[in-house]
Amino acid sequence: MTTIKRAAIIGGGVIGAGWIARLIENGVVVSVFDPAPDAKEKIDAVLVNSRYAYKKLSNLTGPKEGRVIFCESVAEACHLAELIVESVPERLATKQVVYAEIENYADINAIIASSTSGILPSDLQAFMSNPERFLVAHPFNPVYLLPLVEIVGGSKTSSTVIQKAEAIYQSIGMHPLIVKKEIEAFIADRLLESLWREALWLVKDGIATTQDIDDAVRFGFGLRYAQMGIFDTYRVAGGEAGMRHFIEQFGPCLKWPWSKLTDVPELDDELVDKIASQSDEQSGHMSIREMERIRDDNLIEILQGLKRNNWGAGQTLANYESRFLNAANDPG
Amino acid sequence: MTTIKRAAIIGGGVIGAGWIARLIENGVVVSVFDPAPDAKEKIDAVLVNSRYAYKKLSNLTGPKEGRVIFCESVAEACHLAELIVESVPERLATKQVVYAEIENYADINAIIASSTSGILPSDLQAFMSNPERFLVAHPFNPVYLLPLVEIVGGSKTSSTVIQKAEAIYQSIGMHPLIVKKEIEAFIADRLLESLWREALWLVKDGIATTQDIDDAVRFGFGLRYAQMGIFDTYRVAGGEAGMRHFIEQFGPCLKWPWSKLTDVPELDDELVDKIASQSDEQSGHMSIREMERIRDDNLIEILQGLKRNNWGAGQTLANYESRFLNAANDPG
Repeated sequence: MTTIKRAAIIGGGVIGAGWIARLIENGVVVSVFDPAPDAKEKIDAVLVNSRYAYKKLSNLTGPKEGRVIFCESVAEACHLAELIVESVPERLATKQVVYAEIENYADINAIIASSTSGILPSDLQAFMSNPERFLVAHPFNPVYLLPLVEIVGGSKTSSTVIQKAEAIYQSIGMHPLIVKKEIEAFIADRLLESLWREALWLVKDGIATTQDIDDAVRFGFGLRYAQMGIFDTYRVAGGEAGMRHFIEQFGPCLKWPWSKLTDVPELDDELVDKIASQSDEQSGHMSIREMERIRDDNLIEILQGLKRNNWGAGQTLANYESRFLNAANDPG
Repeated sequence: MTTIKRAAIIGGGVIGAGWIARLIENGVVVSVFDPAPDAKEKIDAVLVNSRYAYKKLSNLTGPKEGRVIFCESVAEACHLAELIVESVPERLATKQVVYAEIENYADINAIIASSTSGILPSDLQAFMSNPERFLVAHPFNPVYLLPLVEIVGGSKTSSTVIQKAEAIYQSIGMHPLIVKKEIEAFIADRLLESLWREALWLVKDGIATTQDIDDAVRFGFGLRYAQMGIFDTYRVAGGEAGMRHFIEQFGPCLKWPWSKLTDVPELDDELVDKIASQSDEQSGHMSIREMERIRDDNLIEILQGLKRNNWGAGQTLANYESRFLNAANDPG
């Protein structure tokens, strides 16, 4: 089991804070650098959620919570870190500047991981002195509960570093998905973007409100996708006739007229207004804090339920927890 | 509470059989017509699954299971039916012929509902004598567990019939989503089609295997979508800055280079082979029957978990079950 004792987080927004939460819950000491004046306050708010969630998720005792050290510089944050996580805004040049700064101070064996949701690792690592230790590790919000992390190496990333990263992310309860070919937005966000584009058209054209679309998701296919993906779902739907039969039947639908809306809708003021006001009408009666708690409570129930079936994300959780059991039973 | 005592199912494939299951579990007597020689065998297999699922889903005693009557003709099946469900193959002309036959025998007050996943109700009802009683009620597989049903009226559908249908589907534990504007594929399948198109590209271009894509779904955003939809999820991600801020930030990504794959991939033999063989490698060690059971066990856990939180599909289930409780407590 590859575990780490110290990590650094550069950039403490929603994603950075989620990383901090997941790491400290696994006993890792985390040094944070974020120049924003309200960074600590925002991180503390996420940690309130994550502590509540972990307590509720499992009745096993995990490792003692790691400390969070707020630092004044990248240099200070990188000191002793075995894993350095970059979660700064999605601008290539900004990130490259951050890596240059990190490389001035990072241990030569430290892994440098970007949380980018779409920029190519080869571009990100282009000007690094030691690019072989760089990779993308793209998590999903809330990072402290969702197990998926997409691991993407660039052309200069060493395969040993990919393997080591895979083991580290497993050790903090995640499901690392090794993306074998570099592509913008990787896998999950490409799928999400296609959904988002279609959703925008439906709202823009007045076919559906944001509430209609959300209900179409959460009362229908969203329930399926918490446990089986797109292909397994269709495999089952195809029945004994098999996947080939299913695709041959389903395939031609792609040529039907409803495929026409594949260009990108203009996000003009009118559409932004429409979405924002429909969303307010749908969920404006809840605070974001309240919605986060509802979301986390639901995710906990789903993860616990899947754990009872030892399946998918629940299996990841069960495997992870079995380490605590083994540790507790280990007389050494 | 609008309930029905008798329904007819014309076409007993996966969807038709799912309807039968949901209806009989709610005490409705169902007459079935399907000319396929193995129809009864296939329906019985679905009923094995659904009986198992309902028993496990709730420890409340629902209505006494309705009978299934296998019929020799549309005429026989339609006799006494208050709701007539058409689940025949997705061809407009075939469906129109079936409606003509149904109208010869149906009670004038019966609702005629198509399970089509994409054909416009105005086209389907075009040649009917009493088109005002026709609508689309599009369910999702497995029909006996997923609550979503999209209700879509055509230009000649009466609004009273839509309201009546809404109440009937609620009475059998579903969440009717009234689609206000006719559009091919309605809401959920438009979203699903966009996902499917992107997934096909990812496989075709060798970026990801079917397993990679399924894992990207079920370890990540699939967990989110079982309980909140696309817009609520982004609303929460946007934090206190609000939905407008989130969209303005996120929107420009749609213009990034990863939007290029919006045309439809050719489903040639090579791609069909690739998908079928990757799917075999991913899940060929399980029979379809086994996968159905796993799926249903997972859906049951998810629904029960969400019920404990009285949220989304779990709230639908709780509302539905409260009727049995009320009935049990009703001294009359």
